[in-house]
Order: sequence, then C-alpha cells, then structure tokens
Amino acid sequence: MRPTITAFESSPDRGRGLARDMRVRWALEEVGQPYDVRLVSFKAMKEPAHLRLNPFGQIPTYEEGDLALFETGSIVLHIAKRHAGLLPDDANARARAITWMFAAVSTVEPPIVERSMATLVERDKPWYAERLTMLDDRARARLTQLSHHMGRADWLDGAFSAGDIMMVHAVRRLEGSGLLEEHPNITAYLARAATRPAYQRAFAAQLAVFTGKNPD
Amino acid sequence: MRPTITAFESSPDRGRGLARDMRVRWALEEVGQPYDVRLVSFKAMKEPAHLRLNPFGQIPTYEEGDLALFETGSIVLHIAKRHAGLLPDDANARARAITWMFAAVSTVEPPIVERSMATLVERDKPWYAERLTMLDDRARARLTQLSHHMGRADWLDGAFSAGDIMMVHAVRRLEGSGLLEEHPNITAYLARAATRPAYQRAFAAQLAVFTGKNPD
Repeated sequence: MRPTITAFESSPDRGRGLARDMRVRWALEEVGQPYDVRLVSFKAMKEPAHLRLNPFGQIPTYEEGDLALFETGSIVLHIAKRHAGLLPDDANARARAITWMFAAVSTVEPPIVERSMATLVERDKPWYAERLTMLDDRARARLTQLSHHMGRADWLDGAFSAGDIMMVHAVRRLEGSGLLEEHPNITAYLARAATRPAYQRAFAAQLAVFTGKNPD
Repeated sequence: MRPTITAFESSPDRGRGLARDMRVRWALEEVGQPYDVRLVSFKAMKEPAHLRLNPFGQIPTYEEGDLALFETGSIVLHIAKRHAGLLPDDANARARAITWMFAAVSTVEPPIVERSMATLVERDKPWYAERLTMLDDRARARLTQLSHHMGRADWLDGAFSAGDIMMVHAVRRLEGSGLLEEHPNITAYLARAATRPAYQRAFAAQLAVFTGKNPD
C-alpha cells in the first residue's frame, strides 16, 4: 500500500532539505517504496484535521491504510521494519541502530534546534551575542563527542542504517554555523550521505515542491 | 540474563526520580525483570570506559551479555520488545505507542530540558526574566497540545504503554514550575502513573541510592 506523507506547502528552508519530511522521503527512497505527498499550510497544520494526525501540529505525518503516525523517528523505524536495508538483521546490531535513532533526536538534535531557534527569535535581543556563544558551545560539545565516536568510520555503527538517516539530517541543520568545519570526519560523513542516490532523489523531490518543477 | 544499568552516584535531583535511570527502572519493574545497578560519578561518566557504553557521557546505559545500549528510548523499547506488557500486540497500536516514545523525547522533552537548563545557567543573567517567559510559553504550548490530545483518557493511546513511561517522566520535570497546574488532566495523568506499583518500586530504588537506605 502506497503511503501518504505530509510536508510544508511553503517550506521555511526554501527547499534546502532541512524540513523533517526529508528524513521520511530519504528512508522511503532507500527502500524503493513510492509515496504520495500532501502539502499543508502553516494554518492547516494547526487545524483539527491535521491535529488528528499529529497532536503537536507538525509535519511530516505518515498515513498507510488505517495507520497514521507522526514523529520522524517513529515513521522511519516503521519503514525500516517493513522493508529490508535500513536495519541490520543481527538483533544486537539492530538494537544499536535504534539507539542511534534515539540519540539523533533526543541528544544531538535538541541543542541544534535550540541554536537555530535563537538565531530566529533572539537575534535582535541585547543578549544575543552572549547567548549564541553558550549555544555554540553546547552544540560543539555534542559534535565533539560524535566526532570522537566516529573516528574514521563511514557510518555510526558498521553498515549504513536508519540511525544514519536521523543523525545526518539532525546535524545538517548546523550548516552555515561554522561549527561543522571543526570536525572534518563529520563534514565527510554528511558528504558521504549526500552522495547516496536515495538521498539525492529525496532532496530533489522536496526541492521540487519549492521550485514548482517536477524533479523527473 | 540479568541486565546492568548505570545511574548517578550522586544524583543532582537528590532522589526525586527525575534522573533518566528512573525510566529504565520503571520499565524493568513493569515487566518484573530484576536488574543490577552500577553507580558512576560525574568524573567517571566522561572517561573512556563509560564513553564506550555511551559516547555522549550520560546515564543510564544498559548492558545485557554482549549487548550495550544507551538512550532511554532505545533501552525502554528493547525491554518492551523482550517482555509482554509495555507494547500492544496489534501492529498499528504498537507503531503508535512507539510514536509516543519518540514524541516524548523529541517533541515534548526538549523545551522542558531547555527551561530547566536556563533556570540553572541563566538565573543570574540580566535577561533571565524575559527568557523565562519565552521558555514558559514554549513548554506551555506543548502541554496544551498534550492536554488537548488526552482529553479524559487515562493514557496516551488506549492501554498503558512504554509511550506513557517516556511521556510521564519527561513531563514530570516541570514539577514546581507552576505550568502543570494549568492542565488538571495532565496532573491527573502524572498522579495516575505514580500509583502504579512498578513506578513506586522504581522510585524507591532510585531514592535509596541517595539516602543510602535499602528500599526493602
């Protein structure tokens, strides 16, 4: 059954692949599962029809028959269980890949989102410079730990997995901050991910929403 | 096989059940799985032996034979898969319970942690009052959405699940902020969780680390 996801009708990132539907598109492309997209406006995201799919009024959501999910971690995990290629077969390696999915959204992403949020809503405050230094240090601490963990590895835990999808996308939000360049193994990790054909198809599809041009 | 978890040797919350090992203890108690605890100091958490278990230097970790996990979401999910009682049997309901686990750590908890962090590290800054108002509003928005979702329900999605363990614990960090009292169905939800015998055993066990008294 062909699932339907939701995405921003007008993405704040202008198609740079930073909106969270990118994670779900990428996972679906990795496993070769075609999907439909329903675009929603900011207004519609706060209305009852969308809140029934996601009580927190966010995108993406995922509908497949009578199943409705939200949260990219949960959606990507659901896709990874339904199809081969995103989770290892070995039970322990599988549990570790799921650990990395949670680490991405629970440990690495929050200080990154907090920083992004501050650059939007605190930019004109008198305290902005001092706060940004604090926020940079907090994001930097996570990047340093991630960089130490990765060392010379290509992916987080052996083979590419759903954990890498979640982590790459969370970390990419720091592009332009100058912080990523402090860790060449992390910039190489992001570049490695971006060469995957599935990533490129997902990126093109979300960009096409912004440009109005069909990626094909 | 009896798992070993790690917890703070000296918990900053003085045994009020706010440290994240509480989630794992609670899940283990719900399924009746005995466990061992290894206490770690703040110094030891940043040393190589612990970083091999969790590259981000946090507690809890979970060791079971040759499996080592971190991230409470991943650990609780692992426990829930191994034992009956924390996830529904129906596949769709199971996927929704996992969605709530991710929603707890990815959508609800970050603004709560951000607020707690500010009360610690920004308390003496000239901007604190204005920032706290911003942070209260952000946490309040999530609580309002959660409250609307719950309505008169006892648990997040039908029967009690691992999603409730994660959500209850994330939301409890707002105790003392005054924000919870704006939503009687949320305070009732937390109180309902706290009456569960498994919750009480887990709470007593973590408190005993602080008081030095065996809970039995």
